[in-house]
Amino acid sequence: MRICHQLPPMLDYHKAKELIWDPRTISLSQDQRDWAAMTPDQQEVILLLCSLFHMGEEAVAHDLAPLLIAIRRSGAYLEDEMFLTTQLFEEAKHVEWFDRWFDEVVKRPIEMSSFLGEEYKTIFYEELPKSLNRLLTDHSTRAQAEAVATYHMIIEGVLAETGYHGFVRALKDRNLMPGLVTGIRYVQQDEARHIAFGIYLLQRLVRADRALWDVIQNRLNSLLPVATGLIQDIFARYENQMPFGLDVTEFVNYAARQFNFRVNAIERAVG
Amino acid sequence: MRICHQLPPMLDYHKAKELIWDPRTISLSQDQRDWAAMTPDQQEVILLLCSLFHMGEEAVAHDLAPLLIAIRRSGAYLEDEMFLTTQLFEEAKHVEWFDRWFDEVVKRPIEMSSFLGEEYKTIFYEELPKSLNRLLTDHSTRAQAEAVATYHMIIEGVLAETGYHGFVRALKDRNLMPGLVTGIRYVQQDEARHIAFGIYLLQRLVRADRALWDVIQNRLNSLLPVATGLIQDIFARYENQMPFGLDVTEFVNYAARQFNFRVNAIERAVG
Repeated sequence: MRICHQLPPMLDYHKAKELIWDPRTISLSQDQRDWAAMTPDQQEVILLLCSLFHMGEEAVAHDLAPLLIAIRRSGAYLEDEMFLTTQLFEEAKHVEWFDRWFDEVVKRPIEMSSFLGEEYKTIFYEELPKSLNRLLTDHSTRAQAEAVATYHMIIEGVLAETGYHGFVRALKDRNLMPGLVTGIRYVQQDEARHIAFGIYLLQRLVRADRALWDVIQNRLNSLLPVATGLIQDIFARYENQMPFGLDVTEFVNYAARQFNFRVNAIERAVG
Repeated sequence: MRICHQLPPMLDYHKAKELIWDPRTISLSQDQRDWAAMTPDQQEVILLLCSLFHMGEEAVAHDLAPLLIAIRRSGAYLEDEMFLTTQLFEEAKHVEWFDRWFDEVVKRPIEMSSFLGEEYKTIFYEELPKSLNRLLTDHSTRAQAEAVATYHMIIEGVLAETGYHGFVRALKDRNLMPGLVTGIRYVQQDEARHIAFGIYLLQRLVRADRALWDVIQNRLNSLLPVATGLIQDIFARYENQMPFGLDVTEFVNYAARQFNFRVNAIERAVG
């Protein structure tokens, strides 16, 4: 089969090669100084955010491969497969990045799972693996749509995007931890391509079968309250007195805007 | 789960990042001139070799993901998973590389499948997908051993290595097609890490269960005659008067040496 380089997933495949980055090359020396100067409460919020990202990136790295297999089986989408190999490699690099940050900045064992609330476990350890592993026995377009709505739209498009905003408000706006901020910016740049692929795939699926638009909406609407609950749960741990002055309403609204933005993009394909 | 950077797959994961290459950056202008100056017979042999590689890289890119899933399910091998994401990305890049060569040097549609003999189809379209797809329902160490013996040992370790030697003897030794030769060198460099991972994994499996050594040997010994037959079939198309003076005995012996080299490396782990 020959490659069509004009398809959006191939444009982003080439972009992935151009924008490649290595987590080991980012300096963390200022981060070490900033970390030492933080209050225990501030340290704990950053530990929490980094733990949720570390475990989240590990979960998505583990669970993406079935989509590659389903797309392989559903027909002639070599370009989609090629794009997804860049996404898999990038998810592994994101795990590496957060792992390195714990190694070189925190420098002590952390019980990361202690930071996970019920909503987090529901999304990352139930809904994500269930909807992706289903693709191994059912590569129907309906199963693909539900998996991509979960992975690319809710986890990458809503939760991860809102998490980056947390790093921006807590660290970047205060000129703290430039290494972590730089790494997050690279992670976000990679994930922007992943989300674009998810939207492209969902648009293709609804164009071919309009009934899938309901399937996608149902999936998104059933997961949005869990995602919002996950964000509220983080703030509830601090009785809404979050270090760095982070405000729960701002973050829930930010998540809602990300959600609407994704939904509208897919809806445009329904016409 | 935290990453152990000292494990061989992580060393090669990091090496994969350092040695990354982009198929689009290799100049093919001298290749275009060399191609135009070749006799039709010479062109056909190069077309044949490149077609076998193009379709072979596509087949391995398609079929690797189940190994990632089996390793994920068989336990705590995050480092193996991370290495395999580099391999998947590299297999996609190899497809891109051969595809670009057809686009920019051959510049006309080629019926690549016309070059495939029975042995090629047996290995790439029967044994490869069968042994890899089995991992989706059976991630036993036996199934893993048979899949890796097929993919990493026979296809990458014997057939691809012998194929590179064909490009060296036909082109590099005559200072022809420097672009193709450069790309092949990069492909071979990537595949060397893949083969090393295959040997590492098989060694780990036989150390844990010596009975798997017989499984691996049986698999390799049943596929070696097919692989040798594939090479002989190529020469038979030219009634053993191969352009560029390529000699069937040299290539069959070369394949046998590659085979013995891999088998000995795994055998050392049996102790």
